[in-house]
Amino acid sequence: MERILATYRITASESESRVRAEALAAEQSVEMPVSAIDDDRVLRDTVATVESIRPHADHFDVTLAIAASTTGMEVSQLANMLFGNCSLQPEIELIDVVFPAGYEKSFPGPRFGIEGIRDATGVTGRALTCTALKPQGSTVEHLARLAKTFALAGIDVIKDDHGIADQAPHPFARRVPAVQKAIDEANRETGGRTIYAPTFSGSGAALASQAKVASDHGVRVALVAPMLVGLPAFVELRSKLDVPVMAHPAFAGAVRIAPPVLLGTLFRMLGADATIFPNHGGRFSFSRETCMAIAKNARAPWSDLKAVLPVPAGGMTVERVGEMLSGYGPDTMLLIGGGLLSAKDRLAERSREFVRAVRGTA
Amino acid sequence: MERILATYRITASESESRVRAEALAAEQSVEMPVSAIDDDRVLRDTVATVESIRPHADHFDVTLAIAASTTGMEVSQLANMLFGNCSLQPEIELIDVVFPAGYEKSFPGPRFGIEGIRDATGVTGRALTCTALKPQGSTVEHLARLAKTFALAGIDVIKDDHGIADQAPHPFARRVPAVQKAIDEANRETGGRTIYAPTFSGSGAALASQAKVASDHGVRVALVAPMLVGLPAFVELRSKLDVPVMAHPAFAGAVRIAPPVLLGTLFRMLGADATIFPNHGGRFSFSRETCMAIAKNARAPWSDLKAVLPVPAGGMTVERVGEMLSGYGPDTMLLIGGGLLSAKDRLAERSREFVRAVRGTA
Repeated sequence: MERILATYRITASESESRVRAEALAAEQSVEMPVSAIDDDRVLRDTVATVESIRPHADHFDVTLAIAASTTGMEVSQLANMLFGNCSLQPEIELIDVVFPAGYEKSFPGPRFGIEGIRDATGVTGRALTCTALKPQGSTVEHLARLAKTFALAGIDVIKDDHGIADQAPHPFARRVPAVQKAIDEANRETGGRTIYAPTFSGSGAALASQAKVASDHGVRVALVAPMLVGLPAFVELRSKLDVPVMAHPAFAGAVRIAPPVLLGTLFRMLGADATIFPNHGGRFSFSRETCMAIAKNARAPWSDLKAVLPVPAGGMTVERVGEMLSGYGPDTMLLIGGGLLSAKDRLAERSREFVRAVRGTA
Repeated sequence: MERILATYRITASESESRVRAEALAAEQSVEMPVSAIDDDRVLRDTVATVESIRPHADHFDVTLAIAASTTGMEVSQLANMLFGNCSLQPEIELIDVVFPAGYEKSFPGPRFGIEGIRDATGVTGRALTCTALKPQGSTVEHLARLAKTFALAGIDVIKDDHGIADQAPHPFARRVPAVQKAIDEANRETGGRTIYAPTFSGSGAALASQAKVASDHGVRVALVAPMLVGLPAFVELRSKLDVPVMAHPAFAGAVRIAPPVLLGTLFRMLGADATIFPNHGGRFSFSRETCMAIAKNARAPWSDLKAVLPVPAGGMTVERVGEMLSGYGPDTMLLIGGGLLSAKDRLAERSREFVRAVRGTA
């Protein structure tokens, strides 16, 4: 039977480690005392096993082998088997997951990946630039004007702020055509190929209707927070969209799953083409090591799955472009939102500085 | 403008508290420097405000007033505004949420509530009993036999283990009719009204198809983990089901959104009729205070919303029934799963002991 290797960090004393590891193996599979199971087939094929226990100073790491069949090859049940009940045990974190060969074939995977995003924007041989339309609550006209300013400055991808969803001041069905039109106009002026990533949100029915609006108006990339819409809805939406999908990490920290696993490995398997994450040294506390591990899981060879574009963000500035490029390399998209908008009257100029810095023409 | 009062616990020094509070207010609304916003309407209607800062020994509690309009009256965006980006800041927990009067009307709320579950089971004047079919990986025939044993013993609600989803050994479409039939047979023998709560899981399409199967076979209650299927899918499923819904806490990662908020308040507003949570003193580390607060949020008067049945679970035993009843009172359902199954050959007897203990006929 194929097994998923899931590694958990348990903050507890080493003397407890064997008992805790066995308890976790039961919790994340049969959820009952193993001694009360009579069915040999269940004992062999269903109960998770403890593969290793590695003690550290104040915690230990346990690797379980979880039967792939228990996940039903479906994402809600995969999340359940990886971190369902033990998410309620605050001393336990999920720090690594390795799937058996071929497991990923049951999931969409990135349909476009880095190359698809390069095709959509016409960008080769360098990192991409990205910014965000903000703040929510603005008029649609203001957001469209901002988008035009950014597009004229040559930014490659303009995304909605993740907080701009389908609210009254800027409903999806009115905002998306207006912003896309403003960007199309700018592209005609510059000969550029800036693309617009509107935020998809809400129920399955809402997502389907938003996909229709986006398609009708020539939208060429989408922004979705998988943990907000729900992982199964993210997978369903993926199949409804003919354009690359950027995954946003909102609500992803509500569970204690290591960011390289959730934002790197899992979002990739579920179909993200780009993954946004808070860069080290910004408003969030992700370490450089965590950020590099996310980028690695996004891009490293993995069966037939396309590579995913890492998008470091979260309090970044134009001044950090050089350092970010040397850290992440060219198969990266740099996202600066508030750091451009804070230039206010100098927004167009600051945007051009960002573009030049990334193009190496500063 | 109506405001949602959201209280966050920030583990940081008091000297930082004002700066951190203002930063959080921006993060959870406009997500950009407030000083860079020119639109007076946005400043007035959209930016979250700091209502209070309460210092404690090693942390401080900040209450933000978040504009209800920013949530678009929709659950994925509500989760985003409450805990989207700040979920990625590990020093921040969401510990309380108070909605403005009438806000709840945009969400389904419990359709049946405690009274509806009492109607479905015919139980009045006492707490209800619940157990779980386990382990996953068993044959459908084994699960049906178990269900019949439990139903003959007089248990009120028999739910699937939350790990029993739609996997190969027991696909929903084959398991649910078989288990429901076994319980119907037992009910005819005893004159009882035991009901069966199968686990709903997967994508929106899968949930809709499962709802159809359940309805076709006379299923009278459902089990769903809102955080696994996704909050929007939970709301959509609620509207497709004519029976009470029990919410399971899997993947709720409760340490960073306080369990009384997520499993009590939010699950109630979204339409749960019963809410399962790990009782204190079992396999999980929820405190007695946390458990009582969940029960309070589930049952306390709240506009027109029906009261929700608290279901303490997680490593409970028949020996604890008296203590649980005195703690939670009669508008409660006690869930013992593994604690019955570990009796093995004495399963029927142990199940009857559980039923007698709750009925006060022991």
